[in-house]
Amino acid sequence: PAAASASPPFHAASPSSSPTPAYDAWCGVAHGCTRKLGMKICGFLQKNNSLDEKNRIASSFRDRQTPKNQLSCENSDREARYRRTETDFSNLFARDLLPAKNGEEPTMQFLLEVMDILTNYVRKTFDRSTKVLDFHHPHQLLEGMEGFNLELSDQPESLEQILVDCRDTLKYGVRTGHPRFFNQLSSGLDIIGLAGEWLTSTANTNMFTYEIAPVFVLMEQLTLKKMREMIGWPNGEGDGLFSPGGAISNMYSVMVARYKYFPEVKTKGMSAAPRLVLFTSEHSHYSITKAGAALGFGKENVILLSTDESERPLICFMDAVLLMVLGGCVSWQGYHPLFVNATAGTTVYGAFDPINEIADICEKYNLWLHVDGAWGGGLLMSRQHRHKLNGVERANSVTWNPHKMMGVPLQCSAILVREKGILQGCNSMCAGYLFQPDKQYDVTYDTGDKAIQCGRHVDIFKFWLMWKAKGTTGFEEHIDRCLELSEYLYNKIKDREGYEMVFEGQPQHTNVCFWYIPPGLRDMPPGDERRERLHKVAPKIKAMMMESGTTMVGYQPQGNKVNFFRMVVSNHAVTRSDIDFLIDEIERLGNDL
Amino acid sequence: PAAASASPPFHAASPSSSPTPAYDAWCGVAHGCTRKLGMKICGFLQKNNSLDEKNRIASSFRDRQTPKNQLSCENSDREARYRRTETDFSNLFARDLLPAKNGEEPTMQFLLEVMDILTNYVRKTFDRSTKVLDFHHPHQLLEGMEGFNLELSDQPESLEQILVDCRDTLKYGVRTGHPRFFNQLSSGLDIIGLAGEWLTSTANTNMFTYEIAPVFVLMEQLTLKKMREMIGWPNGEGDGLFSPGGAISNMYSVMVARYKYFPEVKTKGMSAAPRLVLFTSEHSHYSITKAGAALGFGKENVILLSTDESERPLICFMDAVLLMVLGGCVSWQGYHPLFVNATAGTTVYGAFDPINEIADICEKYNLWLHVDGAWGGGLLMSRQHRHKLNGVERANSVTWNPHKMMGVPLQCSAILVREKGILQGCNSMCAGYLFQPDKQYDVTYDTGDKAIQCGRHVDIFKFWLMWKAKGTTGFEEHIDRCLELSEYLYNKIKDREGYEMVFEGQPQHTNVCFWYIPPGLRDMPPGDERRERLHKVAPKIKAMMMESGTTMVGYQPQGNKVNFFRMVVSNHAVTRSDIDFLIDEIERLGNDL
Repeated sequence: PAAASASPPFHAASPSSSPTPAYDAWCGVAHGCTRKLGMKICGFLQKNNSLDEKNRIASSFRDRQTPKNQLSCENSDREARYRRTETDFSNLFARDLLPAKNGEEPTMQFLLEVMDILTNYVRKTFDRSTKVLDFHHPHQLLEGMEGFNLELSDQPESLEQILVDCRDTLKYGVRTGHPRFFNQLSSGLDIIGLAGEWLTSTANTNMFTYEIAPVFVLMEQLTLKKMREMIGWPNGEGDGLFSPGGAISNMYSVMVARYKYFPEVKTKGMSAAPRLVLFTSEHSHYSITKAGAALGFGKENVILLSTDESERPLICFMDAVLLMVLGGCVSWQGYHPLFVNATAGTTVYGAFDPINEIADICEKYNLWLHVDGAWGGGLLMSRQHRHKLNGVERANSVTWNPHKMMGVPLQCSAILVREKGILQGCNSMCAGYLFQPDKQYDVTYDTGDKAIQCGRHVDIFKFWLMWKAKGTTGFEEHIDRCLELSEYLYNKIKDREGYEMVFEGQPQHTNVCFWYIPPGLRDMPPGDERRERLHKVAPKIKAMMMESGTTMVGYQPQGNKVNFFRMVVSNHAVTRSDIDFLIDEIERLGNDL
Repeated sequence: PAAASASPPFHAASPSSSPTPAYDAWCGVAHGCTRKLGMKICGFLQKNNSLDEKNRIASSFRDRQTPKNQLSCENSDREARYRRTETDFSNLFARDLLPAKNGEEPTMQFLLEVMDILTNYVRKTFDRSTKVLDFHHPHQLLEGMEGFNLELSDQPESLEQILVDCRDTLKYGVRTGHPRFFNQLSSGLDIIGLAGEWLTSTANTNMFTYEIAPVFVLMEQLTLKKMREMIGWPNGEGDGLFSPGGAISNMYSVMVARYKYFPEVKTKGMSAAPRLVLFTSEHSHYSITKAGAALGFGKENVILLSTDESERPLICFMDAVLLMVLGGCVSWQGYHPLFVNATAGTTVYGAFDPINEIADICEKYNLWLHVDGAWGGGLLMSRQHRHKLNGVERANSVTWNPHKMMGVPLQCSAILVREKGILQGCNSMCAGYLFQPDKQYDVTYDTGDKAIQCGRHVDIFKFWLMWKAKGTTGFEEHIDRCLELSEYLYNKIKDREGYEMVFEGQPQHTNVCFWYIPPGLRDMPPGDERRERLHKVAPKIKAMMMESGTTMVGYQPQGNKVNFFRMVVSNHAVTRSDIDFLIDEIERLGNDL
């Protein structure tokens, strides 16, 4: 203790100078091996010793004698581990946690309790004997379920209640990682990704500068380079960012295209450019049109090109049609074609536009080629399937969402751009308070001025960690396996009684689109009545699925097609038995419709 | 066992039918009390029994006899708790975790190990004897630090290495929750918020539909209503969304304003409107100008109004000036004033625009009034300080980032809109595959069609949980306390030798802006040489701070003012001693400059 007080490991508050003693009196707890630790890592704080601190140290040592303080030396993580105890949380509140005085013990116990809730949830997510969801209508949840009250109040609730709220939040939610959740393109609960996201939350920082996110900024840079290499851009050169989802990534592509051809729009607005036209297919994601509306092009200047007439999933920009459209536009009323989006993996059919054919046209007419690979980009990781994106290396920009086909937790979407510097040129505002040129490090690593966001969430770490843990080969296996499962489903139902496929031929992605025809409709002649009845089948089956909680799968109408099921697989927990289960379940629920 | 096999708790894969046995053979582990559990919660799966399943159950029971299987009945969480053991992770890989066969035990051990790393980090974050950061230059981290290699490879790394990577990622990062981290408007590490974010990651879902985020969607709705009540809109009516940060929230406000006055722009583009002008102050956040550039208005149509000439922090739209500008615009070359942004808490000075005065002008000229309260919105929670936002109830839209002044983990930013339905009108694209009108629940709860994103991260839960845990009064205490601390700093340095304040008078927010004048500069006459030398002082001190790792505070130039420090407090762990420490540290490092 004598040596320790000569070399204290912390700089402490003076309790007497504080208006709120409960906060100020807290100053870090003295640990068992103060002497060693203090000498070793705290030298830089020595000059700040004061009488206050010495008093504080003395009182800290007194605290150590009380049974409450169970800390040992931090020098070794092993020694400092907390064990969960049966803590009574009913008299504890948020204000008792760190940074409160003596807050460390309740903080650790609270976090361990939360962790217990979460690991239980994880285990049950993979357990097929649990439901996918426990469905309730909005009014039921709003009315309050047995002690689960969503209303906020002026007064704090006990930590006991907070823990109950955590349990109930999970209880009444949807297990998107359950092997029988097929409802969304994003599904699954990757354990490494989950750990990565927990760490990200704990680091709680922001991507805008190297200064406060040095490791994450570099991880983003290296990962984006790797993705550009997989796209096939020479040496992985180019630029990119992780953005809050595919819609924003697609919006970036339109912004950058506009900046490339009409940089003056940034300063002068859309009136400085001719009437700009964007092209995409009618089956592409609605975010292209949304970007057109938001960025001032107008929805009607986003031309939705028809797919080919055979109703094949392959969305074909037929050369002749496109040339006609473009040729017409160039000379027609000042319309100026700017941008073509080719979709690699459409949302509903999972179809891949023929990128090379589209690239030929874009090169000929000097148009920006964007590839929306939000859903299909993951196939670049598979030697077996990457040919579906042939020509992607000719794109000017690519959207690729690892949070979809690659099973990375939400959110994780990249916009990748072939030309270096153009993101910066398009979006920079040079805010002096964030991007000071006179920092001590190489400020080209600051990313914030490339983004339309200011603060930007750390989406990279979970993905980087998964890549480390699985390797490129692990992602490849995952993708190949999901596609095999969808092939299994396709082969199982394509000739099965009671099923009709929505498009001909084998799916290109994991999307399998089909109608289930209940026995009562099978003998009905084609016509409006059958269509109307069939239109109601999928919603009814889906509603029953959700109420029984056994499985979830999406449905929708498309064009003149009545509601059909869209089955997708992106979760590595899915097995053939789960595919079988889905079919059994559809037949069980739909038999009497 | 007899009863159990008649009523199995799971539906299993047939190992023989699988192309990848390691995955398919896994089917959930049989738990100790199959009989009880199977009867109770698995009834809905009974009809799916098959011979395969029976075989599987039998083998599951055999598995239970092996020492590896340590599971007990899940019926009680207490019984099922995992204890950390000394697991050897060097021979374990991601593929050994769930959903792998026998993956539960390694999964739990891995997650507990991660949790241990994270809780250690949390403890150290609050411990003043640890550094705020361990600074390295980009090239140093890229070259690799003792086993921490950022490069990605084709082959997987062991879980041992993954755990090392997790530790190193935290080690070389920045402790934004450390009581001496003052670098950003967002700081602190709230334990409840952290728990909330961990849960959010584990739930891994998406805000676009009630269908897959029922609880989170309702929490968002109730919380936004509460925020609108605090703004003062009648009955808390209106609309809103949580968006990925203040810049995007501000972008929403401009989009919605444009839609309100020129809805045809959505369809026809900016050419359908006159030349629209946005107004904001020169001290406002750059995201207003960025939105102007992105959305097609053009930077030069975002008019930056001067602040008042006394250099007070109060950014004053002088009535006469504004009237002149607006009056001029209305009749001048077809310019059409659309939108005024009033900042509640500027980024650098923390100044509040006089909202009522600006609202008078907006009402007179029928302009959209947006209040950017990204930083200052939190003061609405404080009875003592909310008067600084007087008039906010007259705004048409408000940005309010709980991730700044309210200490909520990143990201958490709300855009609130007074007029119901306008967000939907502005942004809806009615994508059939997501927003089916024939769902079994009230689909007005689906939020996705209001957003410019498609998928949207769950930002609400941590905030909702913190509000529950602290109550409104807890947020009020937090805010009052941070403002008191900044007052303490202001009083301490305003007349102290070697300090000059950047603006006169007491700060309105926690921003305290000042120059530190090293002894060698104190006797220099005013002039260019002094300015040049002073300009270099803050960057030098900041660089030394970062290299020693003791504290971090922001600096920047502004207008014709050379680099000065901007001190802010938003972390509830900060005490007066930390403020003292910062001043001591600046003087220690800057003394010889």
